[in-house]
Amino acid sequence: MKIEVLKNISSANDAIALKNRALLEESGVTAINIMSSPGSGKTSLIMQTINRLRDDVHLAVIEGDIASCVDAEKIDKVGIPVVQINTGGNCSLEAHMISSALGKLALTKIDLLIIENVGNLICPAESYLGEHKKVVIASLPEGDDKPIKYPVIFSKSDVIVINKIDLEPYLDFDMKKFREVVQGLNPDVKIFEVSCKTGEGIDSWVKWLKKLSKK
Amino acid sequence: MKIEVLKNISSANDAIALKNRALLEESGVTAINIMSSPGSGKTSLIMQTINRLRDDVHLAVIEGDIASCVDAEKIDKVGIPVVQINTGGNCSLEAHMISSALGKLALTKIDLLIIENVGNLICPAESYLGEHKKVVIASLPEGDDKPIKYPVIFSKSDVIVINKIDLEPYLDFDMKKFREVVQGLNPDVKIFEVSCKTGEGIDSWVKWLKKLSKK
Repeated sequence: MKIEVLKNISSANDAIALKNRALLEESGVTAINIMSSPGSGKTSLIMQTINRLRDDVHLAVIEGDIASCVDAEKIDKVGIPVVQINTGGNCSLEAHMISSALGKLALTKIDLLIIENVGNLICPAESYLGEHKKVVIASLPEGDDKPIKYPVIFSKSDVIVINKIDLEPYLDFDMKKFREVVQGLNPDVKIFEVSCKTGEGIDSWVKWLKKLSKK
Repeated sequence: MKIEVLKNISSANDAIALKNRALLEESGVTAINIMSSPGSGKTSLIMQTINRLRDDVHLAVIEGDIASCVDAEKIDKVGIPVVQINTGGNCSLEAHMISSALGKLALTKIDLLIIENVGNLICPAESYLGEHKKVVIASLPEGDDKPIKYPVIFSKSDVIVINKIDLEPYLDFDMKKFREVVQGLNPDVKIFEVSCKTGEGIDSWVKWLKKLSKK
C-alpha cells in the first residue's frame, strides 16, 4: 500500500481552506494573508493600514503567533476586532485554525480581513488558508538575497511589500538586484516600497487595498 | 494502538544526533549550531569569525539552506572547508543531514565546526544536531520583542549574539527590555553585542569561541 501522508495533510488543509474561502465570499469579506520573517514589520504595516483605512473600510484582523498575544493587544487597543491564534509551536497558520477564528468574527460587518501569519519565510508558503491575496514583506535590513534563499514564498505571493526603506542610507541593500530576482521568480508580482516608521509609500499600498476590498 | 509519530521522529533524530556528537568528540571537534531569522547575520558572523580565528583554529562550516548555495560560495571563496546542505523545503537542519555532511569533512583536521542552520526562529529550536553549543542571533531591526514571541529558541540557546548594533541610532530597540526578557527565560545565557558590519564587539565573541574550541 502506498502511504501518502504529506499529500493527505495538504489536501485536507486545502479542503478546509476552500470552505473558508466560500464563507468569506458569502459574507462579502476580502482576506489577505501577510507573511514575512520575524520582525520585518507585519504588525507595523497592519497598524499603518488600520490608521489610514478604518474610516472607509470595515476591518478585522486574525493574529497568528506561536506564543504570546502582544500583537493582538496592539490591534485591540485601537478598537479593531481581532482574534489571536497561538499555534503552540506550529511554524505556520493552517486552514483549520482560520476556520475556528472566522467563527468568532461578525463576518457580515467586515469588508477586509487581514491575517497576520507566523513570522517565518518557509512554512507559511505551503499552507493555503482561503485568502484572496498572499502578501510577503521583505525588509531592507534582511538583505537583498532573501528571494534567492526563500524562492517559494516569493514565487507564490501576489504582492511584495519592501519595508524599512528609511534605513536605506545605512545599509548595503541593492534594490535593483532584489527586484530583478523577484521579477524573474514571479513576473506578475506587485511591489510596494514603504517605511512603516515614516509612513512613506503607505498611501499606494492602502489605495490598492481599498480597491481590493470594495464590495 | 497508540500512535506516537512525533515522539518517534524526535527520538530517531536524537539518536542520530548523539552519534554525531560521539564522532565529533572522537575527532576532537567542537561544534556550534548558529540559528536566527532570515537576514539576522548568520553568514556575516561566520565571515567575521573566519577572518579573526583562522590563524589560531582549524575551521570548517556546514551551511543549511532550503535552496541555493550563495552562503557556501562565500565561505569557499575564502578557502575554508564547507559543505552545503539544501533541505529541499525543510525548515530546519536535522541530525541525519549533519551525519551525511560530517562524512564529507576531514574531521581530524578540524578544531571548530560552525553549523549555519536554516533561517528560522521556530523549527531549528526543535532539532538537536549533536552540537556542543546552540547560538541564536537577534538583530536590532527585528525589534526587542522577539524573545517574547519566539521563547523556545531563546530558552534553549547557550549564547545570544545581538547583531547590527551599528543601527541603534536609527531604531527604537530597547536593549534593557530585551535583556530582561531573555534573562527571565534563560538566566544562564551568555550575551554578546556585536556589529558584523563595523566589527564592534566581535573580539569578545571570538575570544569565547577560541576558548571553547581549545583541544
